Parts: sequence; C-alpha cells; structure tokens
Amino acid sequence: MTPSTELLPNLLGGHWQLGTGPGSTLQDPVSGADLVRVDATGLDLATGFAFARERGAAALRILSYRQRGALLGAAVKVLQANRDAYYDIATANSGTVKNDSAVDIDGGIFTLGLYAKMGDTLGDRHFLLDGDPARLGKDPLFQSQHILSPTRGLALFINAFNFPSWGLWEKAAPALLSGVPVIIKPATATAWLTQRMVRDVVDAGILPAGALSVICGSSAGLLDQLQSFDVLSFTGSAETAAVIRSHPAVTQHSVRVNIEADSLNSALLLPGEAAGSESFDLLVKEVAREMTVKSGQKCTAIRRVFVPEALYASASQAISARLAKTTVGNPRNESVRMGALVNRAQRDTVLQGLDYLRAQTEVLHDGQSHTLVDADAASCCVGPTLLGTRDATGSDASGRVHDTEVFGPVATLIAYRDLGHALHLIRRGQGSLVCSLYGSNAAALAHAAVELSDSHGRVHTITPDVTALHTGHGNVMPQSLHGGPGRAGGGEELGGVRALNFYHRRSALQASSAVLAQLNSAAPT
Amino acid sequence: MTPSTELLPNLLGGHWQLGTGPGSTLQDPVSGADLVRVDATGLDLATGFAFARERGAAALRILSYRQRGALLGAAVKVLQANRDAYYDIATANSGTVKNDSAVDIDGGIFTLGLYAKMGDTLGDRHFLLDGDPARLGKDPLFQSQHILSPTRGLALFINAFNFPSWGLWEKAAPALLSGVPVIIKPATATAWLTQRMVRDVVDAGILPAGALSVICGSSAGLLDQLQSFDVLSFTGSAETAAVIRSHPAVTQHSVRVNIEADSLNSALLLPGEAAGSESFDLLVKEVAREMTVKSGQKCTAIRRVFVPEALYASASQAISARLAKTTVGNPRNESVRMGALVNRAQRDTVLQGLDYLRAQTEVLHDGQSHTLVDADAASCCVGPTLLGTRDATGSDASGRVHDTEVFGPVATLIAYRDLGHALHLIRRGQGSLVCSLYGSNAAALAHAAVELSDSHGRVHTITPDVTALHTGHGNVMPQSLHGGPGRAGGGEELGGVRALNFYHRRSALQASSAVLAQLNSAAPT
Repeated sequence: MTPSTELLPNLLGGHWQLGTGPGSTLQDPVSGADLVRVDATGLDLATGFAFARERGAAALRILSYRQRGALLGAAVKVLQANRDAYYDIATANSGTVKNDSAVDIDGGIFTLGLYAKMGDTLGDRHFLLDGDPARLGKDPLFQSQHILSPTRGLALFINAFNFPSWGLWEKAAPALLSGVPVIIKPATATAWLTQRMVRDVVDAGILPAGALSVICGSSAGLLDQLQSFDVLSFTGSAETAAVIRSHPAVTQHSVRVNIEADSLNSALLLPGEAAGSESFDLLVKEVAREMTVKSGQKCTAIRRVFVPEALYASASQAISARLAKTTVGNPRNESVRMGALVNRAQRDTVLQGLDYLRAQTEVLHDGQSHTLVDADAASCCVGPTLLGTRDATGSDASGRVHDTEVFGPVATLIAYRDLGHALHLIRRGQGSLVCSLYGSNAAALAHAAVELSDSHGRVHTITPDVTALHTGHGNVMPQSLHGGPGRAGGGEELGGVRALNFYHRRSALQASSAVLAQLNSAAPT
Repeated sequence: MTPSTELLPNLLGGHWQLGTGPGSTLQDPVSGADLVRVDATGLDLATGFAFARERGAAALRILSYRQRGALLGAAVKVLQANRDAYYDIATANSGTVKNDSAVDIDGGIFTLGLYAKMGDTLGDRHFLLDGDPARLGKDPLFQSQHILSPTRGLALFINAFNFPSWGLWEKAAPALLSGVPVIIKPATATAWLTQRMVRDVVDAGILPAGALSVICGSSAGLLDQLQSFDVLSFTGSAETAAVIRSHPAVTQHSVRVNIEADSLNSALLLPGEAAGSESFDLLVKEVAREMTVKSGQKCTAIRRVFVPEALYASASQAISARLAKTTVGNPRNESVRMGALVNRAQRDTVLQGLDYLRAQTEVLHDGQSHTLVDADAASCCVGPTLLGTRDATGSDASGRVHDTEVFGPVATLIAYRDLGHALHLIRRGQGSLVCSLYGSNAAALAHAAVELSDSHGRVHTITPDVTALHTGHGNVMPQSLHGGPGRAGGGEELGGVRALNFYHRRSALQASSAVLAQLNSAAPT
C-alpha cells in the first residue's frame, strides 16, 4: 500500500486552500513512485477571481513599471535561493537530466530577470506611449497620441506540462510588469514545480496580495469566471485550444486570448552545402540536440529536417550516428544524457504517433535500439527515433509528416529537389513556431528567412561564424517573439517589450497640445 | 406590379457573375421604392477564394509598398470622378442627406488617399522592419531582428450597412497596401454603393485580377472557405460576432479575426464647468450633432451623456432645444437636416429599443414631436429622442442605458455625483469605441483621458481652444485607432501605419550580422 502523499494547497483569494476532493497523484516517470497530489475541487472561484481583479490589480496599478520591475527582481532572488529544490522536483516529477531541467528552471529565472531589468528602462510611468503624436489637420494644435494602458482585468494562464517553471515566468513576468494580476493553472502532470515556485515567491511577501495565484488540478469552471477586460493565455493542444476559443467568455465577451498550440518546426539545409561541410555538420548537431533535449518535449523542437536529395543518405547516417551515442534512462545516473517522457499517457501517445508516421516513412534510427540505463521497460524512457522519406510531396503518400506532431524524441528527415520545393514543403506545416536555416551564403539565407517569416514566429539562421554564439533552434530567448501563425495557434509571446502589448489596451488620445502636454503627470487612482 | 429591378453582379474569381437565385431587393427607405437586387446563390466560392489567394496575392506580393500605394492613389482618382453617382445611390438607398452621405463617401475616399500616400513613406520595400536588432548575448555578432511580412492569404470583410463606402475603404486600403487581396461582403441593405465602387475601380483596370472581389447577398458559406493565413474583419452585431468567433476557421485554424461590435459611447462634461460655459456649450452642440448625423446610425455616436447632477436640467433643456430645430424627412428636400433610418427592420428595432430604455428613463425630448418633411409615417424617418435619468447607479433601476445600444437618433442624459462616479458609470459600458471629454482644465482632462483609455479605443477631448479644429467625437480619423475592448469587440482598425499590422505576420529573424545585413535586398518571389 502506497502511503498517502501530500496534497498541495492552491493559492486563491489571498490565502492557501486545499481542494476538497481526492485529488490527482503526480508520479515519478522513471520509478513510478507517487510524489504529491493536487486538487481544485470546491474552490470559491468567483471570490478568488474577484480578489485578484480588484485587490491584486489595484495594488499593482498604483505602482510604476520601475517599481513592478523591482518586485520581479526580488522574486528572481528568492527563486535563485531555492534552485536546488526546483532541480529535485524536476528530476522526480519531469524525469529530466540536469541540463534539461536547467532549460526550464534557469530559463524561467533568466526570463523573469530580463523583465525585471526592463522595468528600469520603462521607468516611473504608469502607461506606455505608442508612437509620436500625429496631426489631425494642418493646424498642429489638435493631435492624436496613442498610448498603451494596462488592462483593468486579470490574466489567466492555462499551461502545458513541459515547462512548469519557464511557462510560468515567461507569461507572468510581462503580465506583472504590466500591472496585471496572474492566476496560473499549471498542467496537472507537473504542477508541483509551478506551485512550489509561486509558494516561495508569495510566502516571501514580495508581491501584493492577489497579484499571483495558483490553482492546481482541473481547469473546470475557470473560463466561466472571465470578464471582458481579462486576458487568457493557453499553451497546449489544438483540440483544447478550439474548446477555449469557443467559450462564451471569448466569443461573447471579447476576452483576449493568446494560444500556442501544435507546431511542426523545421530545419533546412540550404542548397549548395556539401556533406561534411561546416553547415552540414551544424545541421546534424542541432537536429540531434533538438531531438533529445527534454526528450523532444519542446514545442519548438525540430520535427522535420529538410536536406537536398543528394544529401539524404549522408544526413541520415550522420544524425543517426549522433543519436546512437545518446544514453537514455534514469536522470539520476550521471552517464545518462536523456531522461524520460513525462508520464505513461505521453509515452503511449508518442509510441502511437511513431506508428502513425512509420506507415509513410522509413526508420533511419530506431529508438528501440537504445538500452535504458537504470530504468526498465515499465518506465517512461524512450530512445530517439529518426524517420525519413525521400518523397514528402504527395499528400497521400507522406502527408502525415507535415500534419502530425509527435511530442517526443522523434523527427523526420525529408529530401527536397530545390529551394522552391523545400519552401513549399515547409509551408505544408501550416504555420510553425520556428524554422532553422543552415548555410554559408548570407544573401541566400536572408532570402529564405524572409520567405519563411510569414509562416513562422521565428527563423533561426545558423552559419559557421555563429557556431559558438547562436542561441539554439529550440531555445526561446525573451528578446525574440515566441509564437507562430496557423497551426501554431496564432499567438505572440515575449519579444522583449512587445510581450507587454498583450496586457495593455491601445487607445488614441485626441486632444489639444495643452492637454497632451499634461499626459505624463497623469497617474492612476 | 413593380417592374423587375436590376440584379447586381458579384465579382469573384476574376469575373463578374450573377447569382442564380431570386435575390434580395434593396429599397428606398423614404419612398419604399425598389432599387436593385443582389444575390450570391450558386457562386463557386472555393474557386473564387483560391483565385484571390493565389493569383491576386501573387500579383500584389511582388509589388513594393510604394507601388501598391500608387494603385490606391489611382483608385482615389477613379472614385473622385464618380462621386455624383455615389451620392445618388446614397440618397436613394441610405436615405441620407448630403452632409451625411459625405461622411461615408468622402470619408472613405479620404482614408484611401491617406494610405495611398503612406505607400510612398514605406517605400520600395516588401516587408516592414519592426524595431531595431536586439543582441542575444554579449557578442553583437548574433542578433534578433523582428520583421512584419504580409500574410500569405486573403482578407474577408463582412461589413455593416451604415458605411457602404467608408467601411469598404478603411479596411481595403491597409489590406491592399499590405499586399493582401480583399473579398468584401457588404451588408445586403446598402450593398449597392459598395458594389458600384468596386466595379468602378476594377473596371478601370487599376488592380491586378483577384486583388479586390465583392460578393453581395447572403454570407452563407463564406467562412467555410477560410484557411489558416487568411484574416477576417467583421463589423456588426455582437450576436453575429459570437457566431463568427465560434466558426471552425477561427477556433481550429487560427484565422485572425478583427471584430467591431456594439458600443455605448459616452460624452462627459467634467466637474467644475458651469451651465452656459464654453465647455457646456461644446458638449451640447456635439451631443446634438452626434445624435442626428446619419440619424444616429454610427457605431461611434454618443449614446450616454454624463453631466454633473446640478447641470442635469440645464443640459436637458439646451440639448433638447437644439434637437427641436432639426428638420427630419426626405433627404431630397433642401430644408431637411436629418434623413431616414436605413430600412423598416432598423426602424422597428430602434423603436423597440426606445421603448425598452423608456421603462427606466424619462423622455427629455420626444422624437415623435417632429413633423416629417416630404415623408410620411410609412417612411423610415424617425425624429431624435433624448432620454434622461438622474440615477443611473442601480443596475435594477436604470442599468439598461449602459447595456443597450439603440442604433438610431437616441441618447440618454445621465447625472453623476463626482468624477469617480462618472468614471464608474462610463465603465459600465464594458468597453466602447470612443468617449469624448469636455472641460477647460488641461490636467484634469489628461487625467480623465488616461483613466478611460483602458476601456476605450479613442478618447476625444474637446476644449474651447480647439472648437474650430477638433475632428468630432464620432468622426473616425485614419490617423487614430478605431476599435474598442470588451463589448466593442476588441478589434483594432486604422491608427495610421498600425492598420497594416493586422495584415502582416510578425517574425523574429535570429542570425549573424552578415545575414541580417542582406535582409533589405531580400525580395519576394
């Protein structure tokens, strides 16, 4: 008999409160051990949301961007002081090796730190100027000044399992800096780390009451609480995204929604690069890295690898050779480079997806060839698999690789005839988060980047001169936009100060010069 | 027996084609005469949309902003040459007096002209730079440059009856300047003017085939044609907006949507202004003007008028006195200042709305007191009505004025106690397009403007020094944002170059300085 595990409290309405149901148990994906339980049954959501929207928002709104940035800076210090505990939770609950946990934990703290510093840049203001005043006629006395004002509502985040830390802070940092209170509902599977980080920051007394809340467990009823000036950010499946978009809060009350959903990200070796060239090697290295970091459980991971058809065999061999060296198993063993998938459900989904793709592709490197280290077949560890197809043009013959995201250590190598063919195939992903380009001709790379920009939120170009400098295909830098059109959900996150737009409302103030001159001394009440 | 009227052809797939059904008949709202018919039955939508998305888009995409701006400039000339015909159509089909037709017709041409000029400013480019490059580390060699690229799809506009000209061009101008082909579905009641303007511009051979199409009649099936990179802009009721937002194109394929729906716009006389003061008189004049221009059938018209409670009686008298002087009737009679509502259905809806509001308000000026000029009771002419309430605080007693938009010559005068009370009541509109402020204290006006900015797309401040210069509460200037949060739909249109954002996709290009230096010579293919 398993001993009963701790039930994690939720923070809502300014106090910690336990759900009244039996809860869901979080498990270790390697050992299968029970860890903690989460439950949101019986919470008074209406009171809790009102508390955030009224108390939390009022307290944040009277602060300037600089003052709110200082709060984020203080939160960074608390999180840094507790890093060891976060790594322990990640190892146990996410099954990730230390380097992979760092992407989530240190990536989240780094992003929070960047927005903390941005507060200083934005200064002692309470709203943002948007452009310069525009004349509304020949006489300059009457003009239009656009401003961005923090929305008078709250931000609800419904997050994915793969980034319990980064997913929290990359959204909460710009929201809080904007003066908008946050309620986060982490994915149940890995809610522990999110809850723990919120607990540490809130218990340190850094933020005003109601500024940051966390609800662990079911998302039932959360959207019913949203009002016109609230915003909602969702990261997860396209199916759930469609349900969210159809909710009356969105369709009837114009609740602003940001969605990050599925993405079939690509890597493209440009024409004219030989096998064994620097660019070829950079592609091989990056593909193998992207397939295995966090066991491929990254929204930004490379799923489709495009190479000229003459290089198909050599790319297959080179990537497979790298994958073969990846040790897979228990993240507690120092020799292991790739840990587990997050849970059995994900493992089963990944294996099903692999079967589905295999019907239209060949297996170039088989994940089943990997011997698991300190883990058995009952664990959620899965070796990396490279699939391939020499003909991905026909929608019947091999269309699945452009439509099916297998959220694990899986990618497909695809041969293309010429650049136009490659661009056409990449666009069959119907909108992705990121595409990476590999080559040595700057003009050709710039041309391809612009061509792919309308279907990708980010185009990451890797040339030999930035081998040691580039930030990685899948790494989301807070300075750059994160999101993508179409299948990827159409959302926009991060991108430096652009992230604040989602939490602000744009307004055109038309007035005489005398009134506009008084704007900067207008403080909120 | 009425003689059969002309059936207007639709332009789709590069050729004019008639619907195969009996069609809907457009009528003169004053005389009741049949004018023309429209019908979209039997159109091959799939082929037509594909033609716009492929042929139209390809032809526009190879042009620079400057070249596309020149096309818009040529369209302006064609429209100006045909102005008389447009005024005749407006008089017959919209029942508007000349000054009101001008808001639609000349307002549309002016807006198109502004975007034509913007093409020159944007120059010989094919995409827009969005901010400066940002370093992604200490070494400046690897940076992130955001750009905005025209979306690789089409723009579908589903428009409202009140602005068949302006509603077409305020959307089509930024879309075409962005290189995105347009399909417009005007409201059936006034589709004639839209169809005629499209016909004139297209028959003049200015635009590439597929760049501008028009479908008159039912909107059935249009949304089913939308794909991930298309965008959809809707102006109309909140009910239809909710249906549009729930469509699979939006919920599943991330089609980007812009909505402009209901709005309870306000006018606020700030505390401290005496009856008969300049500010008081400016409010009175603007309210009477806004109530009667286009018979109050403007999304931006003033619906709620807030004055200090001590001024309720004097404001009531002053506004009523102005309204009493407004001659209502047949727009062909030169003495008439206010024409008809657009049709019987709208007239019935307005009268029902008036009854609904009257249950919680008093009638300060009764539209039924107006004798109609050259029009009878069977026409769609309705006199302006000013309602009033001294207590709009209680949601039971008088909540309807904050929730119910009567789309005609109707407004409600509301007494407030102090500024905080006024702001609270204005916000009960749950997000509006525009609020106008009247006063003489620049600091107080700036403070109120910032306070109201988060719930209004535009705040228009009228002070005595801009009496002769200000552009009007309800006039939408293309330099300023048009749209509003919450009930107003959450959309953003116009705002100068900001209007192009909706038709572009933002992307972060991460690359070495050498690659980024080549961006400006990267042209589309």
